[in-house]
Amino acid sequence: MFRNQYDSDVTVWSPQGRLHQVEYAVEAMKQGSATVGIKSDTHAVIVALKRAQNELSSHQKKIYEIDTHAGVSIAGLLSDGRILARFLQTECSSWRWDYKQPVPIKKLAEAMQLKLQANTQYYGRRPFGVGILVAGYDKDGAHIIQTDPSAEVVSMHGTSIGARSQSARTYLERNVEKFEKSSPEELIVHALLALRDTLPAEENLSAQNTSIGIVGKDAPFTLLEDGQVAVHLNQVSTHPRTTAQAQGGAEPMQM
Amino acid sequence: MFRNQYDSDVTVWSPQGRLHQVEYAVEAMKQGSATVGIKSDTHAVIVALKRAQNELSSHQKKIYEIDTHAGVSIAGLLSDGRILARFLQTECSSWRWDYKQPVPIKKLAEAMQLKLQANTQYYGRRPFGVGILVAGYDKDGAHIIQTDPSAEVVSMHGTSIGARSQSARTYLERNVEKFEKSSPEELIVHALLALRDTLPAEENLSAQNTSIGIVGKDAPFTLLEDGQVAVHLNQVSTHPRTTAQAQGGAEPMQM
Amino acid sequence: MFRNQYDSDVTVWSPQGRLHQVEYAVEAMKQGSATVGIKSDTHAVIVALKRAQNELSSHQKKIYEIDTHAGVSIAGLLSDGRILARFLQTECSSWRWDYKQPVPIKKLAEAMQLKLQANTQYYGRRPFGVGILVAGYDKDGAHIIQTDPSAEVVSMHGTSIGARSQSARTYLERNVEKFEKSSPEELIVHALLALRDTLPAEENLSAQNTSIGIVGKDAPFTLLEDGQVAVHLNQVSTHPRTTAQAQGGAEPMQM
Amino acid sequence: MFRNQYDSDVTVWSPQGRLHQVEYAVEAMKQGSATVGIKSDTHAVIVALKRAQNELSSHQKKIYEIDTHAGVSIAGLLSDGRILARFLQTECSSWRWDYKQPVPIKKLAEAMQLKLQANTQYYGRRPFGVGILVAGYDKDGAHIIQTDPSAEVVSMHGTSIGARSQSARTYLERNVEKFEKSSPEELIVHALLALRDTLPAEENLSAQNTSIGIVGKDAPFTLLEDGQVAVHLNQVSTHPRTTAQAQGGAEPMQM
Amino acid sequence: MFRNQYDSDVTVWSPQGRLHQVEYAVEAMKQGSATVGIKSDTHAVIVALKRAQNELSSHQKKIYEIDTHAGVSIAGLLSDGRILARFLQTECSSWRWDYKQPVPIKKLAEAMQLKLQANTQYYGRRPFGVGILVAGYDKDGAHIIQTDPSAEVVSMHGTSIGARSQSARTYLERNVEKFEKSSPEELIVHALLALRDTLPAEENLSAQNTSIGIVGKDAPFTLLEDGQVAVHLNQVSTHPRTTAQAQGGAEPMQM
Amino acid sequence: MFRNQYDSDVTVWSPQGRLHQVEYAVEAMKQGSATVGIKSDTHAVIVALKRAQNELSSHQKKIYEIDTHAGVSIAGLLSDGRILARFLQTECSSWRWDYKQPVPIKKLAEAMQLKLQANTQYYGRRPFGVGILVAGYDKDGAHIIQTDPSAEVVSMHGTSIGARSQSARTYLERNVEKFEKSSPEELIVHALLALRDTLPAEENLSAQNTSIGIVGKDAPFTLLEDGQVAVHLNQVSTHPRTTAQAQGGAEPMQM
Amino acid sequence: MFRNQYDSDVTVWSPQGRLHQVEYAVEAMKQGSATVGIKSDTHAVIVALKRAQNELSSHQKKIYEIDTHAGVSIAGLLSDGRILARFLQTECSSWRWDYKQPVPIKKLAEAMQLKLQANTQYYGRRPFGVGILVAGYDKDGAHIIQTDPSAEVVSMHGTSIGARSQSARTYLERNVEKFEKSSPEELIVHALLALRDTLPAEENLSAQNTSIGIVGKDAPFTLLEDGQVAVHLNQVSTHPRTTAQAQGGAEPMQM
Repeated sequence: MFRNQYDSDVTVWSPQGRLHQVEYAVEAMKQGSATVGIKSDTHAVIVALKRAQNELSSHQKKIYEIDTHAGVSIAGLLSDGRILARFLQTECSSWRWDYKQPVPIKKLAEAMQLKLQANTQYYGRRPFGVGILVAGYDKDGAHIIQTDPSAEVVSMHGTSIGARSQSARTYLERNVEKFEKSSPEELIVHALLALRDTLPAEENLSAQNTSIGIVGKDAPFTLLEDGQVAVHLNQVSTHPRTTAQAQGGAEPMQM
Repeated sequence: MFRNQYDSDVTVWSPQGRLHQVEYAVEAMKQGSATVGIKSDTHAVIVALKRAQNELSSHQKKIYEIDTHAGVSIAGLLSDGRILARFLQTECSSWRWDYKQPVPIKKLAEAMQLKLQANTQYYGRRPFGVGILVAGYDKDGAHIIQTDPSAEVVSMHGTSIGARSQSARTYLERNVEKFEKSSPEELIVHALLALRDTLPAEENLSAQNTSIGIVGKDAPFTLLEDGQVAVHLNQVSTHPRTTAQAQGGAEPMQM
Repeated sequence: MFRNQYDSDVTVWSPQGRLHQVEYAVEAMKQGSATVGIKSDTHAVIVALKRAQNELSSHQKKIYEIDTHAGVSIAGLLSDGRILARFLQTECSSWRWDYKQPVPIKKLAEAMQLKLQANTQYYGRRPFGVGILVAGYDKDGAHIIQTDPSAEVVSMHGTSIGARSQSARTYLERNVEKFEKSSPEELIVHALLALRDTLPAEENLSAQNTSIGIVGKDAPFTLLEDGQVAVHLNQVSTHPRTTAQAQGGAEPMQM
Repeated sequence: MFRNQYDSDVTVWSPQGRLHQVEYAVEAMKQGSATVGIKSDTHAVIVALKRAQNELSSHQKKIYEIDTHAGVSIAGLLSDGRILARFLQTECSSWRWDYKQPVPIKKLAEAMQLKLQANTQYYGRRPFGVGILVAGYDKDGAHIIQTDPSAEVVSMHGTSIGARSQSARTYLERNVEKFEKSSPEELIVHALLALRDTLPAEENLSAQNTSIGIVGKDAPFTLLEDGQVAVHLNQVSTHPRTTAQAQGGAEPMQM
Repeated sequence: MFRNQYDSDVTVWSPQGRLHQVEYAVEAMKQGSATVGIKSDTHAVIVALKRAQNELSSHQKKIYEIDTHAGVSIAGLLSDGRILARFLQTECSSWRWDYKQPVPIKKLAEAMQLKLQANTQYYGRRPFGVGILVAGYDKDGAHIIQTDPSAEVVSMHGTSIGARSQSARTYLERNVEKFEKSSPEELIVHALLALRDTLPAEENLSAQNTSIGIVGKDAPFTLLEDGQVAVHLNQVSTHPRTTAQAQGGAEPMQM
Repeated sequence: MFRNQYDSDVTVWSPQGRLHQVEYAVEAMKQGSATVGIKSDTHAVIVALKRAQNELSSHQKKIYEIDTHAGVSIAGLLSDGRILARFLQTECSSWRWDYKQPVPIKKLAEAMQLKLQANTQYYGRRPFGVGILVAGYDKDGAHIIQTDPSAEVVSMHGTSIGARSQSARTYLERNVEKFEKSSPEELIVHALLALRDTLPAEENLSAQNTSIGIVGKDAPFTLLEDGQVAVHLNQVSTHPRTTAQAQGGAEPMQM
Repeated sequence: MFRNQYDSDVTVWSPQGRLHQVEYAVEAMKQGSATVGIKSDTHAVIVALKRAQNELSSHQKKIYEIDTHAGVSIAGLLSDGRILARFLQTECSSWRWDYKQPVPIKKLAEAMQLKLQANTQYYGRRPFGVGILVAGYDKDGAHIIQTDPSAEVVSMHGTSIGARSQSARTYLERNVEKFEKSSPEELIVHALLALRDTLPAEENLSAQNTSIGIVGKDAPFTLLEDGQVAVHLNQVSTHPRTTAQAQGGAEPMQM
């Protein structure tokens, strides 16, 4: 077996200037079930596939409210994701305590970047094996922030991470010009259509496996209830899956 | 022998984005004798097989009360499990001291998740080799929380972990729709029937090898005494084991 | 030689979910000369073989008083055992200082479990290479507590650890039903008969190689003097060793 | 494979007196998209290529204001670069707090050198995989400061770092004598012409992929808006690319 | 060469339950020049061979007074031994300061055991490469305490450690019954006769190579002067060395 | 390849009693461009070659003022050198603060030796890859202090370190008897002639590549400006380079 | 190549009970230029060879005053030696501050032993690569103390350490009986004759390469000036070198 001597310590550069351990952690993110985020001028939406461990479990949470004006969805190692969600909740609380107002999403993104980066540079920790989408609304408008294990933290119009997320991004790129002026309901349908494209042909979205979170102007972050999810899924089902999309890629969905 | 260079340090990702040390700790959990947890609208029940070291030992504890409204059962490395049970007892006490009321089960689950996750990310510790079921009752109703060495902490309608627990989960999945409205007595019988399915054909449940814990509305957490256990086992014995179940899987029971 | 890459660090799980370093420390315990503990309703007795380094040494202590209501015996690495005995003495003193009464044996067992477990989970220490039996008496009655390097801490009716201790456990299992109502004198004889069974056929118990500790209702923990030991050994000698027992197992006695 | 035993720890010298890990981190810098900085007597300009992840992302920031009199551009690992940009912002704030005036650029450079050097000498960290250009103006005039992972911090008349930056440096060297007396507008055009030379023949500068920052006498640091960028690019397009330049080097552009 | 993977770290157990690093440190003790200790009802004596580096050195100290009622002799790595002797001196001083009386020898032995044991269990230290004999007198009578690198601390009637000490122990075992009632002078002669037996046939005890320390009832610890040593050696020379003894063992004397 | 197991950790001695990592750090010093220092009774002069990265960079500093009575020049890893220069500046400031007078050069040398030595003896750091010459004047007269990565700190009449510095030292040894009574101007010329000898035949000193620092009685440390450097170089150019010198050694000049 | 797995960590014992890293540090001491120390009833003298780096360096110090009543000479790694000399100076100052009198030489030796020993027992440091002779005078008379990397600290009548020091020790052993009553001048001549014997036949002592330090009753420690050294060397030159001595050993002189 080829022995790569630079890939088992996050503090070691390869001769090519790469940090292999960070790249391997990105693999963990890529194997989580997909999540999609998009925003209009006034709203930000995140949708995610919930893993169905079995019929005995409550719905596994993939989307968390972190404050009244922001929520997150997770792709990758869920236990790492929950640690980060909790970190963001604490950041939100601290800011409210200090400034008596909601934390600007930009400040939240900066705090996240600092936390993620430290685990890529110091010995004795490992990079977080998770990507996170933040949907938020503040005085600068709606925001979708994407993070990954390499500590990249980027503001997006729309994005998707996780297993087979390339299919979702393809949908989003084709429709990006429609998002800005979409109504909240349209935004949700776009997000769900993108998410559906990450599924293999034999699977479909359902109220059981789909989570929807939305936040916007005068609308605090809300995790939709099953009934509401079903309503939006009805909308989605009126859009037939094209064969090409349904055949999707060969990317296996794990985790 | 195939040498896997990524599987002896919990802070090292494999190129496939896996944490092998966490997976190996899950193996320790899988080898512990089984435990089952289920809940109705008003009660939560945990039952567990007690390991019979020999006739000289007192009954080995597999179920611990951690507060008047919650108890835990353990599968895996018992010494790790006791550390975690004690950790939860301390969390319960601290909350009572601070807020003069029982800790919400959700807060307890969050504290557990934080503790478990840290041992999957920092150098110099190892993941806990144990899974834990928490049975609790608070103002949100009855709860069964399942944890494992990867720091997954999930709320369940019913579940089983430990050796040959797949058989128990099969029973639970077939009967899950009956749990919600079950009486406490019926819940216990369901749990015992599921637990019985983890036993090889030549073994059976007895007052000696079976522990039962129950908590619910107006009913503090109680670890049933041998006499009470026997009464419930009588109920169970009226349900014949099907051949299929009794033959069970080939999964060996260790630990 | 077969190279096991998972067995030299206590914080590393094997792919089978085992902690080899803990198992190796158990080997050290198994090689120590044997000790036996049993209890009745009112008394707890521990007896141990003293290692005879040579005729020049004072009797090597294998049994320690740790408070007026408890004592311990040791099998394995004696220097580790003394550290733990001293730890227990300190726990007893602290409790008396804080609560003005003897520490409940259950609390002592919990403190011991915490101390032992830490050395199985954190880098830079090794598991203790010793097993300990605690004989105690408190308001809950008489107790025999057994600990080992894996941090298992179990309450027993009777038990034996150390070299060839299986023979002793066999004796105890055959006679366990007699212990509960035994007089202190009978308890001692049972313990000595079990201990004798750990000896090879050509050796025998003597006042020089045997230690006896006893505690009970209204009887503070006492380490018997040589003369008293001899009296009890006289009793024992009236019970002939059966050939089968005397031939014992092939287990070599070391340490 | 040739095994170099001195290249995986930043605290280990090679027999030739080299620090390979520092050199590997420089590789990460070399693979980032290019940035150019030049200064006149009165102004300092930095321009940078923005990576176009896809059409869904907002413009990725490559240039940051760190105070009213200084900004930075980044080549290499962006998450490392943002940490350093934030470090410099904090240095600026602290100085203002302590001295009620902007930090001299020289002091800023010294602080940066200390921070970078520590990661080349102590175990358990890695060198930063990023180069940074600082454009600033203070009582000593305009400044362009260049840093790299080896903790070299140098004051420059003009410079370029990142992928294919040699082509830009060639342009700058040929035109260096013109910079001192250039107007701000001329400076920007020089910088853009140099930046254009780092592009392969088939690519060109656009308002989307180009960032421009400028600071100078009586002109606080400004990151130009897209419209303003387009105006300057129009100027640049009047300068035809020579074939030789357009063919550029074989240096691949990554990251 | 046979590679033992368990023998270079004091915190690693071998599969057989051994701590090889402790055993190797015992080797260092075994190679030091021998020392002998014996006691009567009223006195404790330690004698030791002094290493003759060359004629230029002052007599190398092998015996140290640690308080008015106790002294120590050393076999093994002398620099380690002096550290331990100083540790014991400090323990003696502290006790006198706290309790205004000499430290009981038993307490001194316990402190020593704690100090030695820590170096057998924690990473980053090594076990002390030295054995120490403590001769002391307190209200419990005379004491000879023997310690070794494994943290064994044992009370002895008589003992010898160091190179070829088996020969000395053989002498002591043959004469142990005479010690209890010996006069101080007789004790010294016994100790010297035992020490002489550790010498090869061609060497002999002399005032130059022999140290004698004695403590007892109403007799503070005294390190005898050369003249006094000579007087005792005269006594010894009246006991002829038997051929068997003089031929001694094949054990080489080092260090 | 020959594997040297003792040369990758500064805390490991080779069997020959060498510290290879220190020797490798000396290599880094040897590859820096040369610097020369000499002194008379009243003045100390340091001269150094400035590396010409390219025409875009400001003059790279090789000589630093550290106080009004002292300056340093650097050969080797410049980022390490600047850390040490800053360390010395801090030492100077502290002394002035504490004693209201300039630090004696001897005290400065001692502080430097302590700092350098620590990095040759403790794990987790590396030796500094740089040599430093200190030119100073205090009540004991003029001083040239030479330091290297091994923590050797020596007072010199004249010296040179860095690439091809042997040629400079040869010049200095031939002329050492003239220095003591030289005027400041003569000292500078001697230093420059020595420095010129470190250049290959095809290169020469210029105001661009040469730095000159001088300090002396009633003359604070001064880094000469380019114009002043040119005046002294004129003097030097009147001394023809001998063929032998110009051919110099085969030592390559790096860094 | 023979791979010794026990010789690269100072905290690892070899199976033979040796500490190889300590032995390798002793090699560094053996390669330093020699130093000699002897004492009479009233005076202690240390002499040392100064390394002649070249004609440009001031005399390299091999002998340091550490207080008015004591000085040290060094053989081995000079930078380590200076650290230890400074440590001793600090010990002397502290004692004077605390007790208002000079530190007894015995206390100084104990402090030194503690410092040296720690570097032979704890991970992350290396043993000092230097031997030190202390010449002192206190109320107990004159002292020569010899230390080495193994933390051996011995009081001597006379001694020599460093390259070819065996020749010096041979001289000293032959003349040791003359030292006690020697005058200070005679002592110095003896020391120089011993030191001369460490030189190869073709070298000789000179005022340039020889340092002399002396301390005694009513005579504070003095490092003789070159003129004084010359006077004593004249005395020495009247003693012809015997052929045998001049041929010396084959021991190469390094460092």
